[in-house]
Amino acid sequence: QCNLTGLWQNDLGSKMRVFEVDSEGNFSGEYHTSVSSATKPIQPSPLVGSQHLDKDGKCTFGFTVNWKKFSDSTAVFVGQCFTDDKGDEVLKTSWLLREKVDTLPSDWKATR
Amino acid sequence: QCNLTGLWQNDLGSKMRVFEVDSEGNFSGEYHTSVSSATKPIQPSPLVGSQHLDKDGKCTFGFTVNWKKFSDSTAVFVGQCFTDDKGDEVLKTSWLLREKVDTLPSDWKATR
Amino acid sequence: QCNLTGLWQNDLGSKMRVFEVDSEGNFSGEYHTSVSSATKPIQPSPLVGSQHLDKDGKCTFGFTVNWKKFSDSTAVFVGQCFTDDKGDEVLKTSWLLREKVDTLPSDWKATR
Amino acid sequence: QCNLTGLWQNDLGSKMRVFEVDSEGNFSGEYHTSVSSATKPIQPSPLVGSQHLDKDGKCTFGFTVNWKKFSDSTAVFVGQCFTDDKGDEVLKTSWLLREKVDTLPSDWKATR
Repeated sequence: QCNLTGLWQNDLGSKMRVFEVDSEGNFSGEYHTSVSSATKPIQPSPLVGSQHLDKDGKCTFGFTVNWKKFSDSTAVFVGQCFTDDKGDEVLKTSWLLREKVDTLPSDWKATR
Repeated sequence: QCNLTGLWQNDLGSKMRVFEVDSEGNFSGEYHTSVSSATKPIQPSPLVGSQHLDKDGKCTFGFTVNWKKFSDSTAVFVGQCFTDDKGDEVLKTSWLLREKVDTLPSDWKATR
Repeated sequence: QCNLTGLWQNDLGSKMRVFEVDSEGNFSGEYHTSVSSATKPIQPSPLVGSQHLDKDGKCTFGFTVNWKKFSDSTAVFVGQCFTDDKGDEVLKTSWLLREKVDTLPSDWKATR
Repeated sequence: QCNLTGLWQNDLGSKMRVFEVDSEGNFSGEYHTSVSSATKPIQPSPLVGSQHLDKDGKCTFGFTVNWKKFSDSTAVFVGQCFTDDKGDEVLKTSWLLREKVDTLPSDWKATR
């Protein structure tokens, strides 16, 4: 079974800690990004999310990171747990970053 | 100020209810999708997320929907609150849907 | 049958003209965007692309817009032709915009 | 200066050959994908695209692959040339794959 609880690191050097996953699959944690498009210094940022609890260890999951400590942006990640050739747990994720824009006509460029 | 609490409907007819937003910006709720690529019948699905609490009413936010009641997929949404010309609150969002795949080599096609 | 040749306008007011589609489905044209994240004034920009030639009029297609006249970015669009309730031809598209970044570590933020 | 002409391979084992890039930055070529969600056997597929011709070798580019030989889908790729630590040319790309759907209400799920 896949359980997100613990410390994870991605290819860019960002790290996240997921606290306890409850019986519904909900969790919270902290995301330490190594990259940022904000001007203020990066700070550890709270995350909340949810995972499936399938017994085959290939659960899909998603979470939201609120960058409020240094930015008015929000990111979401969605992905799946795998076990790689060496037996290590691997998370494959995709993400969207929403930057705040002033007006509706600027909405087209707010997400990357 | 923008507060996501309440009932929202999108252009496709999907509805979501966001329960109370706490002082950190975290919230939970229920998502009733009107569209699905799953074979089982659609059911209301739990969501958890987080929003900024900016006073200008243009907060960015994100949330995760766990489709576990009828599917092994997970979706994430990220967006921003706006007020339109008529004075109505509007949410502009983007999303990613993660479908479960069996093996790492199939990862490339798992997200839409 | 769907043929992209002609003048098209999107919801944001951007217009594109597609010149003749050849027997392979290839085409070129001109894209007049109404929105831009560049600092220089917008100019009509060349596009090249390709479409399927299915007889049911629901062809998928894609094209690249090279913004070189006022920017070092490139955009790609992918979509499908439909006929709506009123009998009008409609194009549904998704896009990615690549902005130039200086170094590989900035690659993560280059696409929106 | 970056010139896409030549043979390129990605992490998944897909290969593409780009023929001559003309003075406008336009090119055509052939894409041999190693992955597919289609049922018919994979075949080499024609591509058309466009690149910038910046002298710093960090050009952005885009191209369309028409999978008509074995599928009714179309893909677009957008990216940028870089030179890595070892002095090798590297292409960083993002892509969208449009699958054909029957009706407008299914449009939401057509792109991955």
